[in-house]
Amino acid sequence: MAIARGYAATDASKPLTPFTFERREPRDDDVVIDIKYCGVCHSDIHQARNEWGNSAFPMVPGHEIVGIVTAVGSKVTKFKVGDRAGVGCFVDSCTTCATRDLDLEHYMPGLVVTYNGVEADGKTATQGGYSDSIVVKEGYVLSIPENLPLDAAAPLLCAGITLYSPLRHWKAGPGKKVAIVGMGGLGHMGVKLAHAMGADVTVLSQTLSKKEDGLKLGADHYYATNDPETFKTLQGQFDLIICTVAAEIDWNAYVNLLKVDGNFVLVGIPENAVPVHAFALVPARRSISGSMIGSIKETQEMLDFCGEHDIVSEIETIRIQEINEAYERVVKSDVRYRFVIDMASLDAA
Amino acid sequence: MAIARGYAATDASKPLTPFTFERREPRDDDVVIDIKYCGVCHSDIHQARNEWGNSAFPMVPGHEIVGIVTAVGSKVTKFKVGDRAGVGCFVDSCTTCATRDLDLEHYMPGLVVTYNGVEADGKTATQGGYSDSIVVKEGYVLSIPENLPLDAAAPLLCAGITLYSPLRHWKAGPGKKVAIVGMGGLGHMGVKLAHAMGADVTVLSQTLSKKEDGLKLGADHYYATNDPETFKTLQGQFDLIICTVAAEIDWNAYVNLLKVDGNFVLVGIPENAVPVHAFALVPARRSISGSMIGSIKETQEMLDFCGEHDIVSEIETIRIQEINEAYERVVKSDVRYRFVIDMASLDAA
Repeated sequence: MAIARGYAATDASKPLTPFTFERREPRDDDVVIDIKYCGVCHSDIHQARNEWGNSAFPMVPGHEIVGIVTAVGSKVTKFKVGDRAGVGCFVDSCTTCATRDLDLEHYMPGLVVTYNGVEADGKTATQGGYSDSIVVKEGYVLSIPENLPLDAAAPLLCAGITLYSPLRHWKAGPGKKVAIVGMGGLGHMGVKLAHAMGADVTVLSQTLSKKEDGLKLGADHYYATNDPETFKTLQGQFDLIICTVAAEIDWNAYVNLLKVDGNFVLVGIPENAVPVHAFALVPARRSISGSMIGSIKETQEMLDFCGEHDIVSEIETIRIQEINEAYERVVKSDVRYRFVIDMASLDAA
Repeated sequence: MAIARGYAATDASKPLTPFTFERREPRDDDVVIDIKYCGVCHSDIHQARNEWGNSAFPMVPGHEIVGIVTAVGSKVTKFKVGDRAGVGCFVDSCTTCATRDLDLEHYMPGLVVTYNGVEADGKTATQGGYSDSIVVKEGYVLSIPENLPLDAAAPLLCAGITLYSPLRHWKAGPGKKVAIVGMGGLGHMGVKLAHAMGADVTVLSQTLSKKEDGLKLGADHYYATNDPETFKTLQGQFDLIICTVAAEIDWNAYVNLLKVDGNFVLVGIPENAVPVHAFALVPARRSISGSMIGSIKETQEMLDFCGEHDIVSEIETIRIQEINEAYERVVKSDVRYRFVIDMASLDAA
């Protein structure tokens, strides 16, 4: 066993505090990563605060992990010491059926999430990236393209793939009109990715406060959803709308912005059911769908795509000692556009 | 002008009564059809009773029309006197964009519905098939395969295409598991069509009262939805679920019966919004969609498919004088499985 240091939630109601724990001895097929940066995802907060009701404590959050390989098991072939490596939302999955080949392992039972999960042994708790090191099976480790800065690449591992996967699945590209609802950590990645794919990109944000940023990041159009005119102007315009907000919105008004055969995709999980009227779907063969992260293969494809197009997240780097304040700011949407923890700060603790 | 006889609703609260009205003189591109049979669709009742709030009276309902061509305009090339002909839910559409070529004309503004609609001239009310004749532009007239009985073919024009189109669009076929929710006029057509397409077909009906029929018509499995075990047993089983019922059901329970990437398709319009929880969609990339009839091209394809596979509706033939009792029975789901009016009965009036 190796000792790891990090920050953990010890209880749903307490701030995160320094925490020391064990990482397993690397097995034949394991990669050991010295964590350099870890992004702060809103789902870290939901789980640290047990807002989804499934939290186990102590919990070291973090699933937007990047670092440098410091050791590899004897059977590891794709990584060597010194390589840039990333770990996303899961570190193992069921391999008994063909779903991994189909790039669907993340939708299958048996997924081992990076933290607040349980290893395939059924008992060992997983701990995430707010820490100095992690040991992960080679098949779940990603390569970070050399040209991307490690800190700003971290959020690609969750925010990036969460948007990339539905954009690809529903064929965003030249000739397609794509709207991104929400201009936050997820939304701003959607703008960059959809633009790089060649789609005509519209941001639908509550206000125009981030319009300048949106246009700079690749949006072709930017509309405020607090203006009722927006919903008249854009009626029936989009092939694909990706909704990154979990707040209660007027779902039918958004669905009515779709063309025939258009798709409204939820990537967040609103607390309550989404009441969509059949009148918004049936007369235009529209769909409302959900999408969740991506397979390992697709995540690597996304990272390579980002490498080719020089895409990273817009970030604010923090020291790990600032994590609790950062959480407060995420909850208030007061971040442009993703916090990333500089793990070197652990040594300053 | 030619005089037509039929039955009309003269007011939302009154029974249908005999009604005489005018059909236009055939134009160059018109086909005149002597109506032999007309199916009774639940939407006839909704509109005759103004339950959708958009009814204009007097109204001759009926959009499952079959008959024999009695005259054709000088430019008509596809039909001649004596041919078997059908008319479905619309008799004209917008032709200013490419949507007709794309087989999407039925989802576009400018659709002229067969009754309770207004012609492209913006003023002439359309009147439907509960009558002895109809005059329709050639491009909106369908050919009825010679081997199909005319009476039982009538419901193909609405019930048939309403199921055929989503089954084709979402690729029902060999290796696919399809569930049909509801075993009524629409549902029983779904069973026959999905079976003929080669899919593994399951009926989800409130009770097992129609199980014998369902299996006879082509279902491989039949489950009662009033048994909670059904929703445990069938969890994650289906590629496609087509919901033909407009009643309030536990939508999330049904959506959870879908596989990854599965699609739950509404072909009816429930009165209230459909509250689907993102937790039923996101973790399996599922979709909830709507579908409405089909294009003229797809309707002809469906009729030809039915001709090849000897598929017609299960019907109860009525005289037109029985229409008001038939309406009561439809509302009570007391029909196996579609009423068809024998228009020869008009002469007995």
